[in-house]
Amino acid sequence: MEKVKIIQTAHYVPEMVVTNDDLSSMMATSDEWISKRTGIKRRHISLSANTSDLCTKVAQELLCASGWQASELDLIIVATMSPDAYTPATAAIVQGNINAANAFAFDLGAACSGFAYAFDVASQFITSGRAQKVMVLGGEVLSKLVDWEDRTTAVLFGDGAGGVLLAPSTDQAAVLASDLRTFGQEAAKLSAGVNPPLAAWGEVNPRTISAFAMDGHAVYNFATREVPASLRRACHQAGITVDKVDHFILHQANERIIKVIAKRLQLPMERFAVNISEYGNTSAASEPILLDELVKQKQIKRGQIIALSGFGGGLTVGTQIIRY
Amino acid sequence: MEKVKIIQTAHYVPEMVVTNDDLSSMMATSDEWISKRTGIKRRHISLSANTSDLCTKVAQELLCASGWQASELDLIIVATMSPDAYTPATAAIVQGNINAANAFAFDLGAACSGFAYAFDVASQFITSGRAQKVMVLGGEVLSKLVDWEDRTTAVLFGDGAGGVLLAPSTDQAAVLASDLRTFGQEAAKLSAGVNPPLAAWGEVNPRTISAFAMDGHAVYNFATREVPASLRRACHQAGITVDKVDHFILHQANERIIKVIAKRLQLPMERFAVNISEYGNTSAASEPILLDELVKQKQIKRGQIIALSGFGGGLTVGTQIIRY
Repeated sequence: MEKVKIIQTAHYVPEMVVTNDDLSSMMATSDEWISKRTGIKRRHISLSANTSDLCTKVAQELLCASGWQASELDLIIVATMSPDAYTPATAAIVQGNINAANAFAFDLGAACSGFAYAFDVASQFITSGRAQKVMVLGGEVLSKLVDWEDRTTAVLFGDGAGGVLLAPSTDQAAVLASDLRTFGQEAAKLSAGVNPPLAAWGEVNPRTISAFAMDGHAVYNFATREVPASLRRACHQAGITVDKVDHFILHQANERIIKVIAKRLQLPMERFAVNISEYGNTSAASEPILLDELVKQKQIKRGQIIALSGFGGGLTVGTQIIRY
Repeated sequence: MEKVKIIQTAHYVPEMVVTNDDLSSMMATSDEWISKRTGIKRRHISLSANTSDLCTKVAQELLCASGWQASELDLIIVATMSPDAYTPATAAIVQGNINAANAFAFDLGAACSGFAYAFDVASQFITSGRAQKVMVLGGEVLSKLVDWEDRTTAVLFGDGAGGVLLAPSTDQAAVLASDLRTFGQEAAKLSAGVNPPLAAWGEVNPRTISAFAMDGHAVYNFATREVPASLRRACHQAGITVDKVDHFILHQANERIIKVIAKRLQLPMERFAVNISEYGNTSAASEPILLDELVKQKQIKRGQIIALSGFGGGLTVGTQIIRY
């Protein structure tokens, strides 16, 4: 059974920035209110470019930086809760855009845990020997799911994409453990894009889908309880204690959540990178964006232990422990 | 590395039936026109019940018939192009409904090939030893994606769900081969639920998504070319020739497509089960519905070779060769 290694990281965010002050000119909110409660100062917003466009930029950088040819790819997974469409899959559009003719491609839906889930799925294909060169992307254009008149959710989300190339490891680098959990009985706590069935025969389509709706308190409680638990389980499975993790790369939903998680693990905030001030919550894109920033800044070095952990809609949580 | 076995099959379709004559009272079409071109006579339509509801019925039957406890499940995948929502995942809702507290759950998007793709993903988790008891569901409420004023697509689709339980095999039953391919450069040939990005800042959500749109000729050419090719590759990988397959369980998109595929493989139509007259095209649900019908009718027997093959939006194709 093959070990799995992260070969390359990349990310892309749209150029347009919307600041808290920009939002406070549209709705009853303020920079102070948003910053204090979430840690968010700005978010990048994609106009005209859809999720597949952002993901294609990441895919192109991944190939360019790694030297891999598109034709060598065996598999492309896009984790997203804001796909271009129900069909074609966003992953299929990316596959066509980069001409990865030998890769099969599909979308995976697990909301803000999507990247962690897709990372694990990709790892299984490598572990079994079925795939050798795999691209895992997390991409979101959440701006198209936001009700920009709802100040309770509009301030939270941003657009962006990130990703990794995975391959069998021939050195010490390896995915050491993965822990995925789902709590479907709390499904109603966070929703977006709800598409109800026809209420009566004769009702005419096409359909209007819902914007984000969230029980923020419930999600906060969930994340601060389940993310530390998932990190502990994954570390246990990897044969280490949580204090051996050099970098915690958590889904960037809310800076306060990350601080509480650090405290519950009795670890210093220095190990918990935070970039939410710049991007807001980019759901499945937030982990690979942050991972790539830390790799590019040479904060993450080969041989270090990193923890990736996503959490959110489903409700779901997903953690990987990786010797980078 | 573990071999993978189908333990149990099940399906569920909503009670309400819409006949071709019903449709011809709504739009300029006729039973003769629809039947001749597609093989479809009726389709089941779900009012009020969404995709997760149909999938939950299947999940409950799978558990009841197999004797498995919900708590024993390690993984639930729902293949769908008509999810209840972008988040929560339909699979998470099902997980909550059946109280499969130890299963992680996610949605997989690969349109009409979704079941074949999800089947392969599930198999990887079993092969690697990561999961022992897995539920794979394909469920669709396509009626909510259909423009019921567009006679070119409205006549084609129906609602339903089906699924399987998979586990490590301890006998001769085994998945022998899997072949998944994606043709993203033909992505625009079949679309539904297209959700474009904001065209300009200040545009207000929530959003209207598109209904089905299809280049029927292109999809016909694709399917009649690529499904035989995928079946041949998968059989080659399994170490058999296509004539050794006892039952071909193809995605039910169009009876004419299935007849052309049989002809191109130089095999009699008797080996190609067809139930499209009753259900129409149920996308990711069509393979598991047909599989379950054949198993329940005792047409498929343990030890026989079956081929599952899906094709459609992406464009995608996916085939499994299985010793049942």
